[in-house]
Amino acid sequence: MKNRVITISREFGSGGRTIGKMLAEELGIPCYDAELIHKIAKESGFTEKYIKDAGEYAPGGFLSSAFSNRIFGPTNEDYLWQIQYKIITELAEKESCVIVGRCADYILKDKADCLKVFIHADMDFRANRIVEVYGETEESPKQRLKSKDKRRAAYHHFYTNMKWGDSLNYDITLDSGRVGIDKCVNLIRQLY
Amino acid sequence: MKNRVITISREFGSGGRTIGKMLAEELGIPCYDAELIHKIAKESGFTEKYIKDAGEYAPGGFLSSAFSNRIFGPTNEDYLWQIQYKIITELAEKESCVIVGRCADYILKDKADCLKVFIHADMDFRANRIVEVYGETEESPKQRLKSKDKRRAAYHHFYTNMKWGDSLNYDITLDSGRVGIDKCVNLIRQLY
Repeated sequence: MKNRVITISREFGSGGRTIGKMLAEELGIPCYDAELIHKIAKESGFTEKYIKDAGEYAPGGFLSSAFSNRIFGPTNEDYLWQIQYKIITELAEKESCVIVGRCADYILKDKADCLKVFIHADMDFRANRIVEVYGETEESPKQRLKSKDKRRAAYHHFYTNMKWGDSLNYDITLDSGRVGIDKCVNLIRQLY
Repeated sequence: MKNRVITISREFGSGGRTIGKMLAEELGIPCYDAELIHKIAKESGFTEKYIKDAGEYAPGGFLSSAFSNRIFGPTNEDYLWQIQYKIITELAEKESCVIVGRCADYILKDKADCLKVFIHADMDFRANRIVEVYGETEESPKQRLKSKDKRRAAYHHFYTNMKWGDSLNYDITLDSGRVGIDKCVNLIRQLY
C-alpha cells in the first residue's frame, strides 16, 4: 500500500508550516518542512544559504528569461531540483508524513496517496504574523510578503507548469486568517 | 447584525448545488440556486430561457470582444446583471441563506457575513455525474463540461474581474470528487 502523505503549499506568513507541524504531531507522523529538506539537500555540496535562496527564485533570476541560461545545459537550480525531487520521493516511499512546501504535491502526484492542501490568508493577517514569528526588519512586512509571494509563484510555475494557488490543484484550500489555524488543523485531519 | 450567507461557486457537475441544498436543509435556512433566481429575475420581463442563457455567456458572446457592443450603452446582459445584483442583495438582507452561483460571493462582499465556498472535481467525476443527474445528450459529457466551464469562467471574470477558481477568493475550496459530497457538507457546516 502506498504511504499517505499530506502536502501543504502555502503563502508566506499564512501559518501553513505551523499547521503542518501541528497536524503531524496529532497524527504521530513526521513533518518535513523546507528547512529539513534544505539540510538533507546540503549533503549535495551546496551551502544551506544557496539552497534556501534557490528554492525561492525561478531559475535564471525572477525577472530575466527563465530559459536564457539553459543553452549550455542544466543550471545549478536544475541540479538542485533533481536532488529535491529524489529526497521527497524517498521520504514518501519510506513512511506516511507531512511535507510542507517544495512542490511536494507535484513531485508525488503519481507516487503516493496525497492529501493536497493549500493555505492562504489576506495581507493584513500575514503581515501581522510574520512580524510576530520572524520579527521586524527594515523592509516593511507587506513588501516582504509581496516579494516572497512572487518568488514562490514563479518557482512553482517554472518547475510544475501549474498555476500557484489554483484551487483545482488541491483537495482542500483554506483561508487561515478567516478559518483560524486550529480549525484548519482540525478540518484537514478529518480528511486524512 | 449582518445575516450569515454561504455562497457556493462551483464547476458544472461537481455537485455544488446538491451540497448547497443539503447544507441549507441541515441548517434550516433557505437555499437559492440559479433556477430560483432566474424565476425571480423573470419578473423583469425577460423569458426564463433568455435569462438562463445570458447567465452563462460573457456579454457580447464568448468569443467576440466583450466590449464591442457597449459603444451604444448598457446591453441586456448588463441590465440583467443589475437585477440579479439587486435580488441577491435583498435576499442577503432579509435572512441567512445559501446562495449557489450567480457571483453572489462578489455581489455580497461588503454587504453580508459570507462564508465563501468553491467546489470543483476532476473531469471523470463530473462527466459521470452530469450523465447521472442530467441524462445523456448528443454532445459528449466532457464536451459539455468544457463548454460550461469556459462560459462560467468568462461570465464570472467579466463582471467581477476575479480569476475563476482562484483559492485566494474563497474561505474554503474542496474537491468533491476526492472528498465526497457528504463530507463536503459536513466540513462546510463546521465553518458556518
